[in-house]
Parts: sequence; C-alpha cells; structure tokens
Amino acid sequence: MKVSLGLDFGTESVRALLVDLRGLERAVAVVKYRHGQITKTLPGTGNTLPPEFALQHPGDWIESAAKAVRIALRESACAGDVIGIGVDFTSCTMLPTLADGTPLCLTDQWRDEKFAWPKLWKHHGALSQAATINTFATKRKESWLARYGGVIGLEWFFPKVLETLDRAPRIYDAAEVWLEAGDWFVWQLVGGSAHDLPRSTCQAGYKGMWSREEGFPSQSFFKALHPKLENVVAEKMPGRFVAPGVAAGALTSAMAKEFGLREGTPVSASIIDAHAGVPGAGADEPDTLVMVMGTSSCHMLNSRANKLVPGVAGVVRDGILPGFYGYETGQAAVGDAFDWARRIVGEKNFDALNKRALDLAPGADGVRCMDWFNGCRTPLMDGSLAGAFTGLKLHHGPEHLFRSVLEASACGLRWIVETLRDGGVPVRRFIATGGLPHHNPAFVQLCANVLGERIVIAPSTQASALGSAILGAVAAGAFRDAGTAIRAMAKQRDVPARVYLPERSAVRAYEKVYADYRRLAEVLGGTVP
Amino acid sequence: MKVSLGLDFGTESVRALLVDLRGLERAVAVVKYRHGQITKTLPGTGNTLPPEFALQHPGDWIESAAKAVRIALRESACAGDVIGIGVDFTSCTMLPTLADGTPLCLTDQWRDEKFAWPKLWKHHGALSQAATINTFATKRKESWLARYGGVIGLEWFFPKVLETLDRAPRIYDAAEVWLEAGDWFVWQLVGGSAHDLPRSTCQAGYKGMWSREEGFPSQSFFKALHPKLENVVAEKMPGRFVAPGVAAGALTSAMAKEFGLREGTPVSASIIDAHAGVPGAGADEPDTLVMVMGTSSCHMLNSRANKLVPGVAGVVRDGILPGFYGYETGQAAVGDAFDWARRIVGEKNFDALNKRALDLAPGADGVRCMDWFNGCRTPLMDGSLAGAFTGLKLHHGPEHLFRSVLEASACGLRWIVETLRDGGVPVRRFIATGGLPHHNPAFVQLCANVLGERIVIAPSTQASALGSAILGAVAAGAFRDAGTAIRAMAKQRDVPARVYLPERSAVRAYEKVYADYRRLAEVLGGTVP
Repeated sequence: MKVSLGLDFGTESVRALLVDLRGLERAVAVVKYRHGQITKTLPGTGNTLPPEFALQHPGDWIESAAKAVRIALRESACAGDVIGIGVDFTSCTMLPTLADGTPLCLTDQWRDEKFAWPKLWKHHGALSQAATINTFATKRKESWLARYGGVIGLEWFFPKVLETLDRAPRIYDAAEVWLEAGDWFVWQLVGGSAHDLPRSTCQAGYKGMWSREEGFPSQSFFKALHPKLENVVAEKMPGRFVAPGVAAGALTSAMAKEFGLREGTPVSASIIDAHAGVPGAGADEPDTLVMVMGTSSCHMLNSRANKLVPGVAGVVRDGILPGFYGYETGQAAVGDAFDWARRIVGEKNFDALNKRALDLAPGADGVRCMDWFNGCRTPLMDGSLAGAFTGLKLHHGPEHLFRSVLEASACGLRWIVETLRDGGVPVRRFIATGGLPHHNPAFVQLCANVLGERIVIAPSTQASALGSAILGAVAAGAFRDAGTAIRAMAKQRDVPARVYLPERSAVRAYEKVYADYRRLAEVLGGTVP
Repeated sequence: MKVSLGLDFGTESVRALLVDLRGLERAVAVVKYRHGQITKTLPGTGNTLPPEFALQHPGDWIESAAKAVRIALRESACAGDVIGIGVDFTSCTMLPTLADGTPLCLTDQWRDEKFAWPKLWKHHGALSQAATINTFATKRKESWLARYGGVIGLEWFFPKVLETLDRAPRIYDAAEVWLEAGDWFVWQLVGGSAHDLPRSTCQAGYKGMWSREEGFPSQSFFKALHPKLENVVAEKMPGRFVAPGVAAGALTSAMAKEFGLREGTPVSASIIDAHAGVPGAGADEPDTLVMVMGTSSCHMLNSRANKLVPGVAGVVRDGILPGFYGYETGQAAVGDAFDWARRIVGEKNFDALNKRALDLAPGADGVRCMDWFNGCRTPLMDGSLAGAFTGLKLHHGPEHLFRSVLEASACGLRWIVETLRDGGVPVRRFIATGGLPHHNPAFVQLCANVLGERIVIAPSTQASALGSAILGAVAAGAFRDAGTAIRAMAKQRDVPARVYLPERSAVRAYEKVYADYRRLAEVLGGTVP
C-alpha cells in the first residue's frame, strides 16, 4: 500500500498525516513544539522579549516532526511504503542561517541575540520597516507592487529582514542565508549546498515580492531602502525556485534515519499552510474558490488568467499548484469576529447564541454590521479600519447583533468574489474548508444564500496536511498531474460530501443586505487602494 | 403655615405634594390608578384592544387624586392652609366629553366603544392620521408648521381626533367637547360651562398646533383633511386659553368636599408634566436649559426671544411660564438607551458596568455611538432613524460600547444646545433634573465636560410636582411673579446644590468625539442603513 506523507507545521505544533493514493487517511499524529511560541523570554537566557516579538526554535521543527512521523508510521504500519513527502508551513516565518544551513540562533556566538532567532509569522516588530518599503515602492512606482494590491504587510519577508538590519546590524552581517522556515526545513530534508537550496515559489511569491517573470525587486530599490541592503539577494538569498508539487530533492540518509523513512524519498517544495488547503480541499479544477475559514479566512483560487486585480493582495504564478496563477484574498476576522460578538453580548454558549441568531429572518430586522473588527484585508487592505453596527433599535437583542455579524462576514466574502470577477478572474466553484465550516455549517448555508452559489464543505478536517501529502505524491510522480492526484486523494469517497445550495427566497432577501453592506463600506472605508 | 398643592399626573399614578412658601416639602402621597394603563381589554367589557392602543379611565384621575390629597393633608396636618393648586398632566392624553364635561366613556351609550375612552399620550393608533396632517400641511405651506420644526407627531392632539373620525365616526359625532386630560381635570375642579372651560396654553401650544397669535389651524385646513373636520374648532373645542401660573378658576364646593380642601381655592391652568419641571427645578431666570433626564429626555427653556429654529419641535408663547416663549427639545432615548446597552452586553449590574465605562478615558478608545435607538427627536425629528456603533476592534469590551453610548447621549445634548444658539436663542445656564441625574451623577459630569458648561442638579427629586405647587402659589397671587416664586420655593436651602464644573482636559478631548458624532449623524441621517 503506497502512502504519501504530509507534514503540516502550524503555530503551536506539527501534524504528520499518512494518506494512501486513494485518499484514505492511514494515520495521523500531532506533536507540540517543545518551546511553542517564544514571546516572553529567550530560551536559555531569560532575556525578556519586547511585546511585538514572536519567535520559534528551529530545533523544535525537526524534533517534533520526527516524533510525529515515527508515531504515524508505527500506527499505520506502512513505514516502507512512503513514496513522497509534502511540507506546508506557516508564513512568513523566516530565519537567518550560516551557509551550511545552521540557524544563527543555534551557534554559540549568537544564541543570546533575539534577532538571531526565527521570527514567527505573527512577529510584529517590522511595522516601521513595512511602512518604509511601501513608501519607497509607491514613490518609485515599483512594478511588483501592483501584484500585491499596492501595499505589503508588516509580517512579510523583507520588512523582517530590514528590521534586523535596522535594529541588529551585526546579526544582519552574520547571516549568510535568509530564508523561509518551510524552505529551511525542506533544505534540511534534501541536503545540498546553499547555492542549490530549494525555495518555494509560493512563499517567495506571496511573502517575498518575487515572481517568475521579474524575480525579486531590483538592486536599486533595495539600495534606496538601506545602503547595506543593495546586494541582499545576490549575497544572502542563494537558491533555486521550485513550485509546490515539484520535487525539491530526495531525502538524505541522515534525515531518513532521523524520521524512520527511506533514503531517496522525493520531497516536494514547501507551500504555505493555508495554500496547502487548496489541493487538500479537493479543488481539482481551476476557477474554484477554496475558502479556508477559521479565526480569520483565506480564500484562494487557481486560474489560467493572469490579472492584476485592484484590492487582491497576491497573484503568484506557480504559487499554489504548478502551471496556474494562484490568487490569495482574505478576511481579517471571521471566527474571531463571531467570538468577539459572542463575548461582547455576554453570552457564554456560542451554539445557543448562533442558533437564536440563525432563527431570525435574513436581514437581522434591519441591523447591519461591518465586519472590520480586525481591519479589512481584501479588497481595502487597511488594518486600521474598524467594525460597526447600524440600524439598532431598542427592541433588538444580542441575537440581532450576532446575526448581523454572520451576514456581514458572508457579504465580505461576496465582495471578494465580485472583486475577482470584476477583475476578469472567473470564479465558478466554491469549497469551504478549515475548522469553522465543520463547527458551524449553518454559516456555510448563509454564505451560499448571500453568494447565490452552491458551496461544498470539504470532507477532510485536516485539509492542509492532506494537501501536503497530495503534493508529496505529485512530486513523487505517482500521478499524471496535480488535478488527477487531487481527484484521487482528496475526494474521500468514504465521507459523504456536504453540499449547500442557495435558497431562492433568502437569496432575494440578501440582495438588499449586500447593497447596504457595500454602501456602509463606502462610507466607513475610504477607497480601494 | 401657608402651603401650595401640586398634583402631578403620571402614566401609572398621581402624586400630591404639599409645599410651604419657603420650599419645604410638608407631605407627599402617591396613589396608583385603579385601572393603570388600559392596553389589553376595555374595562367592563373584556373587549380586546389592538396593540397600538393605550387608554385611561377618567374616574381614576379624580379618585386617585382625591385619595392622594387626603393622605398628604392628613400627614402634613395643614388642611386649612392650602392657598393654591397646580396641576400637571401627561400629554397629549385627551378625551371626548359631553357639553357638561361627562366623558363619553362614562355614558351608558358609549362605554363599550373603545374610541370613547381617553387616549393616553403613548397611544399609537394615529400613525396614518399624523402622516396625512403632515402631508397636507407641507403641501399647503401651513404657517404653524414651522413652529414644530416642520413635522408633528402621531401622539399629538389632532391626529388622535382624526383617528376617531376615521375609525369611529359615530363617536366623533357624539363628542361635544374634545380636550386634553389636564384641562378636563382642571375644569372638573373649577366648574363652569364648556364655553368657559380653561385650556392650557402649554398643551394647546405644544400638542394642539395652537398659538396666541394665530389660534388653531384654519377651517380650510381642517376641511382639506376631512370634510367633517371643517368646524371642529368652532363646534367641538369651546373654552378660553389660560397660561400655567394664571388662575383658571376657583375650587367648587363639590370638589372641595371631595378633596378635603377649601371652596374657592385658586387653581392654576394645567401644564404638561415635563414642563412643570422647569419651575420645579428652580429655573427662575430665562435662558436656563432645564434638562429633564429619564428614560427619554426633554430639554426646555424659557426665553424672551421668539425664534423659529429649524429642528426645534416646539416654541410656544406662555407655553411654560407666563410672559416667555417656551422652547421644547428632546432626546428620544437616554435612560432607555443606557439600559438597552446594558442588556445587549449581557450585564445585570448597571452600576458596575457604568463604573467600568466611566473609568475609561474620554473617547472610549475610538468607539463611537449614535444614540438614535428610538429615533432622533431634536433636531432631526425622525423616529425611523436608528442607532449605531463604529470604531469597533477585537480588543474592545462591553465597557467601551457602554461608554460610547453615554458619550453619544451627551453629544446629542450638545447638538441641541448648539441648535438653539445657532437659531438665536441664548442658552446660559444648565439645570439637570428627573430621575437619571440623581442615580447617575457621573453622567451629568460627563455632560458638563462635553458641553464645556457648568451643570447644577436640581435638589428636588419630584420637580414636576414641585413645579405644579409653585404654579399653584403663583396663580393664588402669593408672589409678585413666577421668578420670585421659584426663587422662594424651588431653591430648597436645606439640600446642598450639586454643581458639576467642566474639567479642562476632558473638555478638550471631547471636541474630537463631538466632531465625530456630528459627522456620523450626517452620514446616518441620510441614506446609510
């Protein structure tokens, strides 16, 4: 029985999933990182970290992954049958290393320096550096800026590099390689020199301002940011670019031993964790919007169309699957917004409140909400925007507020779909995945009604890990192409599909709610960048 | 020891207050109406009432008042010393009677007809009739319309008359006199023919579209509304107009016996309950805004200036005190809004929430509120408007929402003050009265900071009853004028004044909050849902 291994690196733990080539999940194991998120003190030193810091320990990644894989292998009893490995990782989680791949933070010289450690995706130390990059890029009319909707985020790769150069120039000097954590992990698996290290087109495209056509931003741009940054790409970013689903290399004997796998097993290039959800959710055809719904939501789509859509944060060739343009859009607070609304109305029982809200008629009796409680990602790209309620009367109760939040979230999703379509990117199919759809399928029905579209909930509750396993199988050449692999492995014929169809009368009622939402956005929101 | 009697007719009960001429309260008694508010079934019949109905029983008014007066007299032991009587009443509470004053609902012929009964101020059956009156008045450019800010309310006098004509024409035909309940009660006290019945300039001016200069609307206007209404004033509204504080007549021997008072005691013309709070709160000079704060708020002011201020609902000569133009403005939900906000955040303990909110800095960390949870009275006069919150972020809690409601309410008050001043009506002094200031003096401090003005909380917790007693003393000629009477009787030297001064740094901080409030009002007052 041939199986593929998906390794899904989250914020707190890593998940190892073994799936056979018909999509049956043979075993899964989750192992927490020994150091978790490092936000208070630096390991081994007790040095206090500033509040905006969020670091990780690279030793945790190897140790926890090896442990998880060994548990899963033992459970499935198919150690000899792993034909390929896929890796997804949080992003932009990144680190400085020596030329041989040794993380700076694991050298005796630098272990006491906080800037030598991997910065977790949510590290927020690079606020001013992101502003600097946006200002210079706008002033210089940098061509790559349009691919990101005109603005990049403080969690991205180069703001984090520039932060270290600004605040700890000795660390910047000591760094021989800067790279994404996912790429570092794959490099550890397949070995080889820094010159040859496999960088994912996904992370580079979505978080590193890189594209197949144009590469990284120019020397002159980097020089304008900081004199010492001029040659950052040539000097500190060696490697080659590999798309997820393409083999980055083969497992070294040392790593095969560490993980209990066979030397030479093909390893796919890494992919961002959310993006792995696209194959994992069964999106075997382009023009399918995969909605990864959780505390925040990330909506992704593969397309043959290459369009620069105003307000869409990222379009990356080979960004999700080889051969397609991958579009990424998002909502900054979804489950978070629902939970905030629950707290603000003083209700302990989420399900009871959710049910009372869903028992109301569409439109929440005139209460409207703007769901920007954590800013607006797509299409306004403005974290400073805030949420709102309107239409409030004395007879309204908590359930009206809560329903209006659900409806606003669905309207925000519809706005994203219309933004893509208006920009010339077809959106034909809808798949919901992530934790939220399984816990709150009634919200998915509400989305179907607001969109006026059929939505399928992906059967797997671990779509990212499954997507990685599929990419591992594709990289191993077990299938003709990614679409074939997804059809074979992600459809899970043993789990009935959950399909939500739009309900005619509700669809009509939501036309007005959506029109109100857009008007409210116009009033509260400034303009699309 | 000379005393004056104030009778304060509320929605559920009547209060009898005996005050001596130095302002010492000698006794008070409150007696509930036997039938309370009649909203479910008609007394004696069991006939179900429509949901918009709210009626009262005229027998309750006499019976409860007589009982309350007797209790107060007994307690104070000064039965022989009552020199004058003042009466305030909810408005527009109104009824149809025979020419001798007998309420139609107390005749055998009509007691089973719901339209024969007194309609309580909050009766909401005249929605379409109010719309008709507003439409015709606007079309015909009726001159009186400007005195009411361009629109009259469904709770007013003529919408209620027209409702009966539309829905129960036989009752309209049978009615020989239509009048305010306060006027009916005073008529009962002083006797006399219908031709001579004393109608208050307050109720007629604020609720009856009447003015000293122009009288009621014209025959041709009434004819345009309904052919049968053409001669309503000549045929069904006999009487003379008397200002509060002017004697409407003297107590009849029958009523003296019923109440335990002396025949011939002077009785002031009636006044609306809220308006009685102006003398009761100690507003002895014009240009003093008396803010009656409760579930809703009514802000009133006497002025020598006669201005038509856009958005100010009523300016009535002799409307509150003889010799002044009385201005009435209001906020549709104040205490109601605070209590709604408490409920919506699921907090049982009002004081705890209020304290947590008031511990925050001015501005509620960016959360803004529009306090139109029951529509906007002054200055937009639109009951269909609704409340809102903006600036909401995931880190905000119930206390931020609650503080924003308090701040919005104070901003609404400031808007009213600015509307009056912009209209040429000076506002120089501020007195807060009603139940709310005594329960929540910190809110009064917040108002002082938002206004940038000194606010005094009136000492009496029964300002309307006290105001009525003062008007009774004035009508009896015990003082040179109303100002002198108010200075003597409402200053209550035994209760220390509570004065709230604006705090400089908070005043500055609220400039931005107020600017935001006005911008939000502009946006929400238009087309935003």
